[in-house]
Amino acid sequence: MMGYNIVFIGAGNLGVHLAKALYDSGNHIAQVFSRTGNSACYLADQVNAIYTTDTASVVDADIYIIAVKDSVYHELLPHIDFNNKLLVHCSGSIALSVLKDHSSNYGVLYPLQTFSKDRKLEFRKIPVFVEANNLENEDVLKELANGISDHVLHLESDKRLFLHISAVFACNFVNHFYTLAAEILKSKEIPFHVLLPLIEETAAKVESMAPHMAQTGPAVRYDENIIKKHEKALRESGNYEYLYHIVSKSIYNYYQNED
Amino acid sequence: MMGYNIVFIGAGNLGVHLAKALYDSGNHIAQVFSRTGNSACYLADQVNAIYTTDTASVVDADIYIIAVKDSVYHELLPHIDFNNKLLVHCSGSIALSVLKDHSSNYGVLYPLQTFSKDRKLEFRKIPVFVEANNLENEDVLKELANGISDHVLHLESDKRLFLHISAVFACNFVNHFYTLAAEILKSKEIPFHVLLPLIEETAAKVESMAPHMAQTGPAVRYDENIIKKHEKALRESGNYEYLYHIVSKSIYNYYQNED
Repeated sequence: MMGYNIVFIGAGNLGVHLAKALYDSGNHIAQVFSRTGNSACYLADQVNAIYTTDTASVVDADIYIIAVKDSVYHELLPHIDFNNKLLVHCSGSIALSVLKDHSSNYGVLYPLQTFSKDRKLEFRKIPVFVEANNLENEDVLKELANGISDHVLHLESDKRLFLHISAVFACNFVNHFYTLAAEILKSKEIPFHVLLPLIEETAAKVESMAPHMAQTGPAVRYDENIIKKHEKALRESGNYEYLYHIVSKSIYNYYQNED
Repeated sequence: MMGYNIVFIGAGNLGVHLAKALYDSGNHIAQVFSRTGNSACYLADQVNAIYTTDTASVVDADIYIIAVKDSVYHELLPHIDFNNKLLVHCSGSIALSVLKDHSSNYGVLYPLQTFSKDRKLEFRKIPVFVEANNLENEDVLKELANGISDHVLHLESDKRLFLHISAVFACNFVNHFYTLAAEILKSKEIPFHVLLPLIEETAAKVESMAPHMAQTGPAVRYDENIIKKHEKALRESGNYEYLYHIVSKSIYNYYQNED
């Protein structure tokens, strides 16, 4: 691979990890744009790039990668000139077609992972889903993605939306439940780390078992005494009773329907 | 350690793992009782014990370990003669005091893990929480627990209840969300294994970051477009919209309150 000239639009959690991976795999990061100067500077520094906070100063490149919060696409894109080059976004839930008014060459490169700036990640293990407006552009994206990941797959926008939703359940909602567990423990002065072997094993189990086969606990057994005892305890401590109730019911319903 | 004579009451997921660990650490499993003959036989075979399905045939021992579904305690315990020996249960959410009518020596040994019969587990990494009706019995339980785990801690019943609740969030509810994620993917013919690197990283992050610092995704960013798009997609596919809504709201509220 010769390496492409890439401009990064966005320097958040995803932008940082993706730009570094692309830089490390032999591409040239021509410029980093972010509305936040600090973020732009931080990332530019790590990938040997220049940076700007001004949409009018975005430079020419082979590929423009949009890695911003989904809600700012519409404010940002009309103000940048992409020179009709390959314009790529990285969002799970935004259709390929939103880019068509901004360039005649466009695509999606969606790495399925939770990105926090300071975490080291093995990018090659991350599945990357690509889609483009024509085969030629899709080949460019595949080449780019193969440079950073061992798991590059084609996926259309409507399926990618559901992939993203599944990731919200399996990651964002899961992490929130870790957070609530931590809060509950904190209220009783029990350190969070006692849960780590359980969290690790819960995640490890589904590598070799279907998740519905790995389910344990009071809700799947429908141990009503325990469920009511937990709801009462949460009610008295003033938190999370309703969430507990709703998720327990969802578990119960799932296995009822299965029989 | 000389090793104790132990009778196991219950041969489910927890019973199997705990009996094996105690057997492997030099105790003698005198007998396995289960109301299900197959389960009793299966476990007895692995720990070189006899088995019975008859409460009247339970033999004498140093320690009786109750590892049954919480809801069957009350049906089962009055029918077994524990010879006033050390009577121990393994439940997160049952108070120590429920045993006091069945023996004058009693305690709790609660291993915090998700147990599925066919999983290999490193028992030494599992935190084990103990409590007993007096110091002498607690010393016996600590000795027993130290034989199988590197993380033995004293914890009282009222705190253990909240520990169990936190485990329901961090394990049972988490696994249910893996299950729903798998269902969502299946409906779009996407294989579940694409989520595994994400699941692994989500769990790994909280080993070095507080979970509330690790939160990512549309709800914490309050990316309303995406949240509404996900809810609409789930509504149209007929599933999980309400759960998505409630958990997203819980995430949003959590970070609102934090500011």
